[in-house]
Amino acid sequence: TRNIDLAVVAGDGIGPEVVEQGLAVLDAALAGSDVKVSTTEFDLGARRWHETGETLTDDDLARIREHDAILLGAIGDPSVPSGVLERGLLLKLRFALDHYVNLRPGTLYPGVTSPLADPGEVDFVVVREGTEGPYVGNGGSVRTGTPHEIATEVSVNTAFGVERVVRDAFARAQARPRKHLTLVHKHNVLVHAGHLWRRTVEAVGAEFPEVTTDYLHVDAATIFLTTNPSRFDVIVTDNLFGDIITDQAAAITGGIGLAASGNINPDRTAPSMFEPVHGSAPDIAGQGKADPTATVLSVSLLLEHLGLTEQARRVEAAVAADLAERGDRVRSTAEVGRELAARVAG
Amino acid sequence: TRNIDLAVVAGDGIGPEVVEQGLAVLDAALAGSDVKVSTTEFDLGARRWHETGETLTDDDLARIREHDAILLGAIGDPSVPSGVLERGLLLKLRFALDHYVNLRPGTLYPGVTSPLADPGEVDFVVVREGTEGPYVGNGGSVRTGTPHEIATEVSVNTAFGVERVVRDAFARAQARPRKHLTLVHKHNVLVHAGHLWRRTVEAVGAEFPEVTTDYLHVDAATIFLTTNPSRFDVIVTDNLFGDIITDQAAAITGGIGLAASGNINPDRTAPSMFEPVHGSAPDIAGQGKADPTATVLSVSLLLEHLGLTEQARRVEAAVAADLAERGDRVRSTAEVGRELAARVAG
Ligand SMILES: CC(C)[C@H](C(=O)O)[C@@H](O)C(=O)O
Ligand SMILES: CC(C)[C@H](C(=O)O)[C@@H](O)C(=O)O
Repeated sequence: TRNIDLAVVAGDGIGPEVVEQGLAVLDAALAGSDVKVSTTEFDLGARRWHETGETLTDDDLARIREHDAILLGAIGDPSVPSGVLERGLLLKLRFALDHYVNLRPGTLYPGVTSPLADPGEVDFVVVREGTEGPYVGNGGSVRTGTPHEIATEVSVNTAFGVERVVRDAFARAQARPRKHLTLVHKHNVLVHAGHLWRRTVEAVGAEFPEVTTDYLHVDAATIFLTTNPSRFDVIVTDNLFGDIITDQAAAITGGIGLAASGNINPDRTAPSMFEPVHGSAPDIAGQGKADPTATVLSVSLLLEHLGLTEQARRVEAAVAADLAERGDRVRSTAEVGRELAARVAG
Repeated sequence: TRNIDLAVVAGDGIGPEVVEQGLAVLDAALAGSDVKVSTTEFDLGARRWHETGETLTDDDLARIREHDAILLGAIGDPSVPSGVLERGLLLKLRFALDHYVNLRPGTLYPGVTSPLADPGEVDFVVVREGTEGPYVGNGGSVRTGTPHEIATEVSVNTAFGVERVVRDAFARAQARPRKHLTLVHKHNVLVHAGHLWRRTVEAVGAEFPEVTTDYLHVDAATIFLTTNPSRFDVIVTDNLFGDIITDQAAAITGGIGLAASGNINPDRTAPSMFEPVHGSAPDIAGQGKADPTATVLSVSLLLEHLGLTEQARRVEAAVAADLAERGDRVRSTAEVGRELAARVAG
């Protein structure tokens, strides 16, 4: 038997509700196999911060590191000043655990209604850089709160950091039928960072002669995501542009209730973390209204990352089947989870 | 009689074609009035750069400054390295002439097909900051081209710069029926810049008690632009976020062939500049295929800026009437221009 030690960060708002269903589906996927999951819950998020002032201690981080993977629900609450939990907990996990590949599939499943009139077949994946760019926190302000305030944000991009994520994206493109990679940046304005990305795609591309590439400025990318999302196969982009276009990608493929993500450390020097793209949605928390599908699809990415490919496929197939048949049935979080688990158990 | 000295920068690709029609419509709008336009053409863009290595000289800039306004077609050509004309010409104009309000209406005109299945009524305006943010060019790279390269881009935001554009946006919101202002930023990650924007909206908002406000992270804004664009009235945002969401806004309202913009210096210390949002589209240049509508709508913004409100309305009404009736008739650039001019002449 193989044992998987899973760190669970249910977090705030709807986080615990969707994670509960994600774990139920995970159990269903592994039932009868020789893979066992043991979970450790980490009490992190708004409640903990209010009680202790802590976001993520060194000890928390050390204990999380001992796990094989992390399942995260959602972080954030309006009662906590903006940035505190994002920077102190969510981004701290992504940075400390070197999650340099933030993987976000954009798939329009059959049966799902897109807000686009004519979306066509949408099946791409965004490889968002996860540890650099404007997310590094190298900003500051002087004369804060005065008419002479200056606030800066520094985007830091390294050859090391860009190359490793670009190589990962090429490898993913190589493994897909269309073998196409689109770099999204803004190199006509952000010339230094942009040219580093561009040169890197060119250089690494030489190692992947079968992969075709093109380039879009981020503004143009939002146009094509609206008018012709089928054109995308693999997109590689920086941390901030990836944040923006993956929310748009979620919107055109049925909403953030369905959008999964993996914060992946491909070198496996630390556990990878799987989380729905959506936030904590405090307005509907505790009401059993949240759709756990994004979390369940994140569990599929988790299984794949752990090499449990067959189980990953079964979870994704269960979601696909559910989406194909759900129509506008209103179901609770638990009902969706139960039905998905039943489909996975088959 | 009033004389208007207009600087014309036709630029590259389809620029000259669309500008020709824009000027024809401008003439039609002023025919029979006591307002006369004299134009000075400035030879700027790819051709000039190839011939002389110049993008925009001090002398060009000094002569442009003497005009009442600028009409710009499009800048950029694949034969020029990325960033050279953008930074050296287009952005240099915006920065040097202190175009701190980059005004970009997002209007879905009746008769125009949106790629959204159910767009609803879309009628908002984006007030994009034009002289700060990550566009300031304060980036650099060290160990360039080596595996140890570090490339940075610095977003610079000042209380002075943010306040003036926020105040302009509030004034525009105040003048509109819905009186609503949405700040778009990413203050949970870009905490320093973001909090400056946030505090500024709060402070200036106190002067506009009738204007309601809300806030969206830029990623969430792309979702609402997809699922519910009717919710927007006035959006105020930073230079880069404004670049991104206005292309998306163009996409949902019929494409960049229709998207107008004004680079406005509200203090009138230098001429404002009006330009279509689209680029130079070298692939269709010289073929009479480009839609001059975005340029004509930019001429309407130009007229409004010059206080020629009645003429501005007539130009916009001509475009609206044309859009309502165009169906899928294929017309050349000149045909569209001619028909619009005829409508304006009435
Ligand atoms: C909550 C926030 C810090 C986060 C991000 O910007 O990465 C979120 O928007 C996401 O996409 O996971
Ligand atoms: C060409 C480029 C520099 C420009 C910008 O980024 O502002 C364009 O995209 C625009 O929106 O006018």
